[in-house]
Amino acid sequence: MAVKKLGKQTVKFESPPYIISSGTVAGKREGEGPLGGYFDMVLNDELWGEKSWEKTECHMLLKAVEIALEKQKLAPDDIDYMLSGDLLNQIITSSFAARELQIPFFGLYGACSTMAETLSLGSMLIDGGFADKVVCATSSHFCTAERQYRFPLELGTQRTPTAQWTVTGAGAVVLSNEGTGPCIKGVTTGKVVDFGITDANDMGAAMAPSAADTFQAHFKDTNRMPEYYDLILTGDLGMYGRDLVRTLISEKGIDLGDRYLDCGCEIFAGEKGVNAGGSGCGCSAVSLCGWVMEEMKRGKYQKILFEATGALLSTTSSQQGESIPGIAHAVIIEN
Amino acid sequence: MAVKKLGKQTVKFESPPYIISSGTVAGKREGEGPLGGYFDMVLNDELWGEKSWEKTECHMLLKAVEIALEKQKLAPDDIDYMLSGDLLNQIITSSFAARELQIPFFGLYGACSTMAETLSLGSMLIDGGFADKVVCATSSHFCTAERQYRFPLELGTQRTPTAQWTVTGAGAVVLSNEGTGPCIKGVTTGKVVDFGITDANDMGAAMAPSAADTFQAHFKDTNRMPEYYDLILTGDLGMYGRDLVRTLISEKGIDLGDRYLDCGCEIFAGEKGVNAGGSGCGCSAVSLCGWVMEEMKRGKYQKILFEATGALLSTTSSQQGESIPGIAHAVIIEN
Repeated sequence: MAVKKLGKQTVKFESPPYIISSGTVAGKREGEGPLGGYFDMVLNDELWGEKSWEKTECHMLLKAVEIALEKQKLAPDDIDYMLSGDLLNQIITSSFAARELQIPFFGLYGACSTMAETLSLGSMLIDGGFADKVVCATSSHFCTAERQYRFPLELGTQRTPTAQWTVTGAGAVVLSNEGTGPCIKGVTTGKVVDFGITDANDMGAAMAPSAADTFQAHFKDTNRMPEYYDLILTGDLGMYGRDLVRTLISEKGIDLGDRYLDCGCEIFAGEKGVNAGGSGCGCSAVSLCGWVMEEMKRGKYQKILFEATGALLSTTSSQQGESIPGIAHAVIIEN
Repeated sequence: MAVKKLGKQTVKFESPPYIISSGTVAGKREGEGPLGGYFDMVLNDELWGEKSWEKTECHMLLKAVEIALEKQKLAPDDIDYMLSGDLLNQIITSSFAARELQIPFFGLYGACSTMAETLSLGSMLIDGGFADKVVCATSSHFCTAERQYRFPLELGTQRTPTAQWTVTGAGAVVLSNEGTGPCIKGVTTGKVVDFGITDANDMGAAMAPSAADTFQAHFKDTNRMPEYYDLILTGDLGMYGRDLVRTLISEKGIDLGDRYLDCGCEIFAGEKGVNAGGSGCGCSAVSLCGWVMEEMKRGKYQKILFEATGALLSTTSSQQGESIPGIAHAVIIEN
């Protein structure tokens, strides 16, 4: 029996890896939102001096990693592995950023669950004795995501009320076997869950069942109730997905309560034109690496359950009539 | 210092995970080639009763996993994690296969290096004490890859001499903390290496520098010479890439000798119309899970270095004038 397993989907770490540093780069709109003050760097425009949005996104991811390293006076050579993924086809943002950094690289794809996926595997690499320091990073960019998944921006296509606004942002953390402050105590790894949603403009509904499924597995495996945590945070369900998770989980007799928030709702809270809220790998990444890390250091939060969700579709799968499955990975972060 | 590290890029396992089972599904052309006799299942046509090639590829991956499980009378519920990735945008093959299997899922993307990436992380999960059994799987399909990366097949576009033929094939292994026979003793994780190749029809040249780089790191970290191994195998460099690796590595004073083979050259050896040889995640996957596993069991090979290489491009990155970086991960398999 795997010694660190706790139930079917959860593992606990013997020597919980510390989050010793984090870096964030956010877009202009994100910088103007309620979390704007938490970001290390905010862009003035969508291109940031690059010739394409894709190059901008890569530059942002690279910068987020560099900021996280600089805060601890670390060089790329001090890092054992980089784990990163993004929404672009063949995760070019991550691969091209890894080309610059020259850190041994594992490319991941978990759609918008990627930040939690990198933290899960990164923690296992450290607690397993394979690494001292790991960089976990991800990003998204409104313009690259729209270009790839939806319509040319120049068309000015109208958005549905359930549609979400892809966050322009990149977040990175350095995990270490030594440190103080927030550390990762365990992770619950999600299964692919499909409730048959086919509307690619309603990602919250597509991802909510997987979010509820992983929450349920987590509380069962750990024999905990939501009250154990100060903050339970999903990645980018938006307002409709968030409400759906509450409903689905309450049907199992679990009340998430006021401690439950969604990064997609928080990052653009009160803003108009973002419809159901923020989305994209960068949404949960900049929220966690900026806002949550800062508030943990200040002592506002002591015990957090961070669960990022991903919608596992492609334009091809949607064109071929496939439904949209979701996945969610949960990470326990404690001070 | 991470206790299992050996040099900068290599780790050795304390309790090497065993490859207790493997499953392969190959296309018609691959079945007619010199490795055909090693595959568990060979398709009669490109669709296999499905309505799209993408659905076929997903079905193949699922079947390869099911075959690997059946050989050991295992159910999906006996498996702690599934690690899988593929070439299709947003790795839909792997995600949709994981939806059927309902095993906690980590999606990976390493282009054609994916088989080695899944084995690397899968082994760490077991040796780290986080899992007893892990499924590692990947696939590719000639028709889905051509549709996505190149031209509609109906056009009959002429192929360049350096072009490779994407293997239609899916391979899966079950790694276990207990067993007998071939086991994974360690892995060397690659960096992203870019020599500035921009010709998307010459993937062998794009990937060869990363293959040589990881070989060099491996021999340095382990303080071994190629003679330690019976077989050194790259994934899908094809004939030009294979020769380039020999040249690049010989410039460092290392002679790979006759023990060095490339799956892309072996799988279609002697066949016409495949130009430089086979490629795709499925190329190294079916070669390893079929041919190599069988020959290890028969005792022909005792010590193998399996290094799969990936070209980290997308159609967007090529259209934007980016060069094509490569990555290679090496896995030590011993009886």
